[in-house]
Amino acid sequence: MCGIVGVISKAPVNQMIYDALLLLQHRGQDAAGIVTAGPDAHGRKFFMHKARGMVKDVFRTRNMRALSGTVGLGQVRYPTAGNAFNEEEAQPFYVNAPFGLVLVHNGNLTNAHALREELFDIDRRHLNTDSDTEVLINVLAHELELAGRELPLTPAAVFKAVRAVHKRIKGSYAVVCLIAGYGLVAFRDPFGIRPLCYGEADLPEGREVMVASESVALEGTGHRFVRDVQPGEALFVDLDGVVHAEQCADNPVLNPCMFEFVYLARPDSTIDGVSVYQARLEMGETLAQRVISTMPPSDIDVVIPIPESSRPSAMQLAQKLGKPYREGFVKNRYVGRTFIMPGQGVRKKSVRQKLNAISMEFKGRNVLLVDDSIVRGTTSKEIVQMAREAGANKVYLASAAPPVRFPNVYGIDMPTKAELVAHGRSLEDIRQIIGADALIYQDVDAMKRVVGKLNPNIKGFEASCFDGTYITGDVSADDFAAIESQRLTQKDEEEAINSRLALQSATD
Amino acid sequence: MCGIVGVISKAPVNQMIYDALLLLQHRGQDAAGIVTAGPDAHGRKFFMHKARGMVKDVFRTRNMRALSGTVGLGQVRYPTAGNAFNEEEAQPFYVNAPFGLVLVHNGNLTNAHALREELFDIDRRHLNTDSDTEVLINVLAHELELAGRELPLTPAAVFKAVRAVHKRIKGSYAVVCLIAGYGLVAFRDPFGIRPLCYGEADLPEGREVMVASESVALEGTGHRFVRDVQPGEALFVDLDGVVHAEQCADNPVLNPCMFEFVYLARPDSTIDGVSVYQARLEMGETLAQRVISTMPPSDIDVVIPIPESSRPSAMQLAQKLGKPYREGFVKNRYVGRTFIMPGQGVRKKSVRQKLNAISMEFKGRNVLLVDDSIVRGTTSKEIVQMAREAGANKVYLASAAPPVRFPNVYGIDMPTKAELVAHGRSLEDIRQIIGADALIYQDVDAMKRVVGKLNPNIKGFEASCFDGTYITGDVSADDFAAIESQRLTQKDEEEAINSRLALQSATD
Amino acid sequence: MCGIVGVISKAPVNQMIYDALLLLQHRGQDAAGIVTAGPDAHGRKFFMHKARGMVKDVFRTRNMRALSGTVGLGQVRYPTAGNAFNEEEAQPFYVNAPFGLVLVHNGNLTNAHALREELFDIDRRHLNTDSDTEVLINVLAHELELAGRELPLTPAAVFKAVRAVHKRIKGSYAVVCLIAGYGLVAFRDPFGIRPLCYGEADLPEGREVMVASESVALEGTGHRFVRDVQPGEALFVDLDGVVHAEQCADNPVLNPCMFEFVYLARPDSTIDGVSVYQARLEMGETLAQRVISTMPPSDIDVVIPIPESSRPSAMQLAQKLGKPYREGFVKNRYVGRTFIMPGQGVRKKSVRQKLNAISMEFKGRNVLLVDDSIVRGTTSKEIVQMAREAGANKVYLASAAPPVRFPNVYGIDMPTKAELVAHGRSLEDIRQIIGADALIYQDVDAMKRVVGKLNPNIKGFEASCFDGTYITGDVSADDFAAIESQRLTQKDEEEAINSRLALQSATD
Amino acid sequence: MCGIVGVISKAPVNQMIYDALLLLQHRGQDAAGIVTAGPDAHGRKFFMHKARGMVKDVFRTRNMRALSGTVGLGQVRYPTAGNAFNEEEAQPFYVNAPFGLVLVHNGNLTNAHALREELFDIDRRHLNTDSDTEVLINVLAHELELAGRELPLTPAAVFKAVRAVHKRIKGSYAVVCLIAGYGLVAFRDPFGIRPLCYGEADLPEGREVMVASESVALEGTGHRFVRDVQPGEALFVDLDGVVHAEQCADNPVLNPCMFEFVYLARPDSTIDGVSVYQARLEMGETLAQRVISTMPPSDIDVVIPIPESSRPSAMQLAQKLGKPYREGFVKNRYVGRTFIMPGQGVRKKSVRQKLNAISMEFKGRNVLLVDDSIVRGTTSKEIVQMAREAGANKVYLASAAPPVRFPNVYGIDMPTKAELVAHGRSLEDIRQIIGADALIYQDVDAMKRVVGKLNPNIKGFEASCFDGTYITGDVSADDFAAIESQRLTQKDEEEAINSRLALQSATD
Repeated sequence: MCGIVGVISKAPVNQMIYDALLLLQHRGQDAAGIVTAGPDAHGRKFFMHKARGMVKDVFRTRNMRALSGTVGLGQVRYPTAGNAFNEEEAQPFYVNAPFGLVLVHNGNLTNAHALREELFDIDRRHLNTDSDTEVLINVLAHELELAGRELPLTPAAVFKAVRAVHKRIKGSYAVVCLIAGYGLVAFRDPFGIRPLCYGEADLPEGREVMVASESVALEGTGHRFVRDVQPGEALFVDLDGVVHAEQCADNPVLNPCMFEFVYLARPDSTIDGVSVYQARLEMGETLAQRVISTMPPSDIDVVIPIPESSRPSAMQLAQKLGKPYREGFVKNRYVGRTFIMPGQGVRKKSVRQKLNAISMEFKGRNVLLVDDSIVRGTTSKEIVQMAREAGANKVYLASAAPPVRFPNVYGIDMPTKAELVAHGRSLEDIRQIIGADALIYQDVDAMKRVVGKLNPNIKGFEASCFDGTYITGDVSADDFAAIESQRLTQKDEEEAINSRLALQSATD
Repeated sequence: MCGIVGVISKAPVNQMIYDALLLLQHRGQDAAGIVTAGPDAHGRKFFMHKARGMVKDVFRTRNMRALSGTVGLGQVRYPTAGNAFNEEEAQPFYVNAPFGLVLVHNGNLTNAHALREELFDIDRRHLNTDSDTEVLINVLAHELELAGRELPLTPAAVFKAVRAVHKRIKGSYAVVCLIAGYGLVAFRDPFGIRPLCYGEADLPEGREVMVASESVALEGTGHRFVRDVQPGEALFVDLDGVVHAEQCADNPVLNPCMFEFVYLARPDSTIDGVSVYQARLEMGETLAQRVISTMPPSDIDVVIPIPESSRPSAMQLAQKLGKPYREGFVKNRYVGRTFIMPGQGVRKKSVRQKLNAISMEFKGRNVLLVDDSIVRGTTSKEIVQMAREAGANKVYLASAAPPVRFPNVYGIDMPTKAELVAHGRSLEDIRQIIGADALIYQDVDAMKRVVGKLNPNIKGFEASCFDGTYITGDVSADDFAAIESQRLTQKDEEEAINSRLALQSATD
Repeated sequence: MCGIVGVISKAPVNQMIYDALLLLQHRGQDAAGIVTAGPDAHGRKFFMHKARGMVKDVFRTRNMRALSGTVGLGQVRYPTAGNAFNEEEAQPFYVNAPFGLVLVHNGNLTNAHALREELFDIDRRHLNTDSDTEVLINVLAHELELAGRELPLTPAAVFKAVRAVHKRIKGSYAVVCLIAGYGLVAFRDPFGIRPLCYGEADLPEGREVMVASESVALEGTGHRFVRDVQPGEALFVDLDGVVHAEQCADNPVLNPCMFEFVYLARPDSTIDGVSVYQARLEMGETLAQRVISTMPPSDIDVVIPIPESSRPSAMQLAQKLGKPYREGFVKNRYVGRTFIMPGQGVRKKSVRQKLNAISMEFKGRNVLLVDDSIVRGTTSKEIVQMAREAGANKVYLASAAPPVRFPNVYGIDMPTKAELVAHGRSLEDIRQIIGADALIYQDVDAMKRVVGKLNPNIKGFEASCFDGTYITGDVSADDFAAIESQRLTQKDEEEAINSRLALQSATD
Repeated sequence: MCGIVGVISKAPVNQMIYDALLLLQHRGQDAAGIVTAGPDAHGRKFFMHKARGMVKDVFRTRNMRALSGTVGLGQVRYPTAGNAFNEEEAQPFYVNAPFGLVLVHNGNLTNAHALREELFDIDRRHLNTDSDTEVLINVLAHELELAGRELPLTPAAVFKAVRAVHKRIKGSYAVVCLIAGYGLVAFRDPFGIRPLCYGEADLPEGREVMVASESVALEGTGHRFVRDVQPGEALFVDLDGVVHAEQCADNPVLNPCMFEFVYLARPDSTIDGVSVYQARLEMGETLAQRVISTMPPSDIDVVIPIPESSRPSAMQLAQKLGKPYREGFVKNRYVGRTFIMPGQGVRKKSVRQKLNAISMEFKGRNVLLVDDSIVRGTTSKEIVQMAREAGANKVYLASAAPPVRFPNVYGIDMPTKAELVAHGRSLEDIRQIIGADALIYQDVDAMKRVVGKLNPNIKGFEASCFDGTYITGDVSADDFAAIESQRLTQKDEEEAINSRLALQSATD
């Protein structure tokens, strides 16, 4: 999961990209980067700054000052594939031949390993990281080299290169790339799994075009939303802000990722024609029906959301049930670290550091807790326990998403199958593990139906975590094994890092 | 406004104080500090770390490692009086004679200026900052020097010193102070304006006692709440965790600050026997009555809170009116800076950077917005405007607090009279300034009544901002002039700093 | 002026490169960088760290830890051409196609501007800095792409590419470049202007080969000196430490830079077969003859060096004259900044901050001061004045180098012609400007003769600053104009920066 | 060993103190601090900045800007007693009662332990560090409290307090202390062990007085040297720059520390009327006699100094012997760290990292190496070995100081007795350990005689390391045991820290 943005303007773009990244910060808090260029020296020189951390920490005045120029890209990263702790994998990526390219990417390639070998062995291109974004920029570079032999580079040549890229790479990808001296190319995978939209503004200096992961980034920076980029489509925006568009995939079909609506996107965004907020209200509506079909509403005294993203669903559910909606959990906004002191054991930090229950809303009541989804189940179990300790009589738990039973290969950070509480377990098994008096899940078909009807152009959803269907059709058992092993390696690394940190704090 | 904490334990306290400060972080985000001591060298050596910034940024592993010891204090600061930008005024403060004292303080002295002269001219004590906490620790030091001539120091001598301190200083103060080699003294002003409570835990290593501004800090760190410190009372906790208590004021009377209940304290805290959450529900209840007496509820389609602290009041109000409660504003959790680029004008950052309206909740509706209070009115005006732009038909605004008409001298950061929108203005004037179709304020007496009835021991409230009554009885016209002038000086400084920053970013 | 180093080993090389850079630190204190690679993943992944500052400040433990691998490069930079203040121009440089190359370079290209246009317009290669090292690596990349189409890459193909590079680039250059997965290529311009040598060590893990700017870097890291790289020659060292060598220039002829012997190189280095220390002794010898032919030695009471690099020459001169050699100047080893305080003028920092005279060595004596060279003359003038103030009777000044009359295009940082005190002035004019009672310069032919006779293979010297002869034969009036203008631009920038700093310190 | 400075002026003093500290940097590179005050608020507010590191690293523009005021102190620290790694022990120290004092101190108290107990138990003063400077400022504070009860404070009261301080404290001490609102007091122990002098300048703003450890600090900042502070004497400089002076000790007698002349002080300083440079020439003279009486000069081909401080002695010795003086060792000016990589052993860093031999000055010759002193002997042994490896025929070693046989209690950082190569060993034993063909030491009486005759007022020297005589007469066997144990503890700590660092670098 990442947030990406690109701008072509006639005015300086550094502050605008910074503001857009803040509006996309919820999509990735691990690292941030901005690159700008032009208008001097034919717009060919790139200025880049990227680092680990939140946007407000990564960019200081001196960095912003150095990011001069009227075109640029930005990215916030949430680590998915690749080594999660690697500074050098922060985006944007740069290659200097041909033309000079910088690129940002949201998504995950499912055939990165094979492409990597091709690049080394055939294209003589060196990859210095484990990032599949580096793979992607090199594939694009190679195809641009072939398609763009005649100078100057034309939109047609760019589209030809994107068409070739679509043929070589598989998986989910929303991409924005600057071509030094020419403009910006943006494209989206043929299934439109990851979101991408664009908007415009008319400045005194001229037309400005922005491409971004979510509509809030456009609107929050003064642009009017034009439309979503279509699945498989490529836009080429030249340095004068003229937008060229062409469908570059053979059989594009819109299947946006369901998780965007469940919890990834901001509620005030509209993605592929669907208001995220309204989608969540609808999920509350259908969830209410599941609750009603499970238990008499009279058994429920109060509906309490588990902050933050479950609120619209919970509110709608409460209204539908005719039950009071109360914010019985207070979120601790400020969370810090556990320092491991020499001679002291590591104290287990738990969800209690992040949530606190207000007893008077629980005492003696039958409470229906609503969460956006249940993944490992460990947090849910603790929250149910907290509700009991706060004096609840009965504790019911409803999940606005269906059971998460399968891994994700399209860029959502999910644990391995073995860690998913719903993987291979019955509803009753899960309920017992979590310790709730009742457990109600969203119905996957109902969810697809109500969200889908908000935009008839949506042909389906990428909902593999729920239904096990991988729409790109190229994910094999081997890929799963690789993903699992990568996740496990990462887990090992995380543990290695944790124990290293423990050792370190025992010595520093 | 500050948050303070003190601990006497037999186990290391650094992580515990850190965790307590995180739980009090909402009381001050300007600076943070921790001091620890003991048990080595008779518990006499202090280890201190303090700096500008949030708790999670101020304390790194190496700082935490250096904070060894089994007793300690912590503080988070929100600047009130004094130069707001001064690193050296971060608490805790230290004086080395007599005994070695470190002290944290929440509140504001109204006679600091006179005390400062006394200390210089008579007591030959040097003050190196403009902080009234430095004044306070030196007055306490002077009185401990007089009261504690015979060694070892006794609880009786400590209480004698606190008695003398109560006689010399005026204003609001909740104080925790470590006396090297002896223990911890905590006391609260005779009106109990600022909160202070304590709790205990039984560890394998022995009894642990914690004193803190709010009950969440106790409970969130595993202590059972024992009671609030009484107005005028002092506790002396010796190094074995034995709590000695004595009333040290002549006419103590409990008058807690109303702002704690309006927005300062966390909803999950209980202050002076009153659940902050419940107080807010009650304010919603009485506010509902004001709404009903102002306009027919049928004119209202939906109740929308202005996040965060108005939520319980708004929810209760909606329920009372029988109207839907909807979260129509999304808060931008991630806010950054405006960078001033050379040759570019400064863009005005507004409330729109912090809030975003979800149009579908406003479009064509009559909305009742609920805020916790209205101070300058500028934010309210902008929010009303945002609601209109989002398509609202009528925009009504209700404030869970009464009109803020007077300055504060007890440690709440308030603008000068001239900046208060309600100062010297009629309700209709204010409504027009804010631009709402209706404006409903809480009633000050109703608020006092409903909050007060939650604990009969509360004799009244420090509510001077609303009613102009200064309970300490020592605030004269001169004091006001001084406060106003100090505020203005600060404003000038802030402006100077802003223009300096502008210049700087034009050159760095 | 830079110092460069490259290593192929079977053992980790990070500490070794670090130590080598410390030994070369005198060649550049502006920035430092290290890149390492292998042995994992076929030695293809590069690890790089580079930054402004001295070696000991640039590399922290965490940086060193990240520099894993058994092959690597390092560089210390003294800014010459290009913007002196630009972080991104720190070496090594990296391009990812073909193969993956990282490169360090000491020298200056005289046709960088024309190459830059070629690369953009014909080779479609993007240059992101003003550094001619980036030009050089891209030319080499382009030629390797052409020469190395058949995989695997052979030494013959590498030499073919270097041969092509020699044909395209002009100026001075000593280069070390890693080719990912293949090894290291090192080459030197056809005149051998900038130094480069190599050595070997036999470690338990296997053969180790190091290439470096000066022999001290080899010997100080435990390698035995093998030989200098010949002018025009290229070495290719494969990953097993096998050294392949081939002459790649048509008419190579050894003309090392005279400034290496005058003051650039360390006295304990041997460059192109000449001990730098001995060269300086010889210069003292011939300078003594010039002194004797100018004035009777009996007029001189004592010989005093101006620290540091003039010492060997001064010592030999004193011995030749039969006069005492005394260290009358104490160098201030610790030099700091001038802080510009608001409302204060800028105090002029002078040579007096760096040197202090011991009066008893000057009082009443006729002193012969010896410096390594005289460039602008301003320092000399101040030192002569200091000697007078310390009580000297007569003050004579001797320069171990001839008059500096012409600009440098081969990488030595020299002021513009107009700033050179000897440019267009007679000896008597210069003497008057400097204020000495006598002024004695080295004779350029004598210097060439005595240094040259230390190695008969040296056919001549690059001594253009003294004799105005530019051996590469390609430097035209236009180039001079460009150099002058670049220098002037840089001066302007320096002044702009200084005044910016002044403004900044007036505001930060 | 420390360097200290204090200034009373009418103009800002921050840059001046900074420059003075740079000139004293050789006296301490561990930490640096500056405090300034006035002229606002009656000169009562102190501004302080201190930190670990070199002067140029400790003070940044923002720190300097904050150090406003026209009076101030500065200090550079070389750790002696106390924990060498403790940030909080950086000077200046501050106590706020009485008056507000800040103080810097060069020296070492021999009765600090007993004073510490007195302060805690009787004076009720808290000490938070192990620094004896904190002891000293508290003793002075206590005595000023007693002597200065009547306000305003008079010079007579200050002198009375200093008189009492002389009676309570023992050891070596040169002290400068600011009294807020009054001025500066400077004093020196009754034996004048550590140096202190003062000078004046007449600025447009008025008279300026500076007190400093060495005369170079005065002269290098534009002051004319007035005189040394006498042993036991105190100066009180009021805020108008009027100097009051009084002898405050009963039996003062000048016995300056011999190590200042051997290697501590800068050669261009004059201490207690003796030019340090000339003292070193004289030591070379008497050392020459020892050489002549040990071996025929004809056995010596060349005299080679071991840089830096032995140069004047070696030069004079060479001249006396009629032998050439050659700088055969090149000092590596740039020294870095050894990084401990996981899985690699720690490489032993040796003197070879700091020195390099120029073979041609050694090859086939009998060389006489001259060092300023020999302490542990390990460095000497390595240098002798280097000379042999460079081809020397015979290697003789001469020490400009006599054998170091005893520990130091007056502030010179010396190893324990057991580590001194000369402790309890014959000349022949030492020679064999060092491995020289001959070993010649300075004669202690000759050294005292020739240095002493440069100022007849010097009654003797503190030369306990050489002669075992502790002039303060209060050093008992217990003190030695304490010193040894402290040294050993420090060694343990150093080792603990080293192994901790090793562990850390194995994990960070």
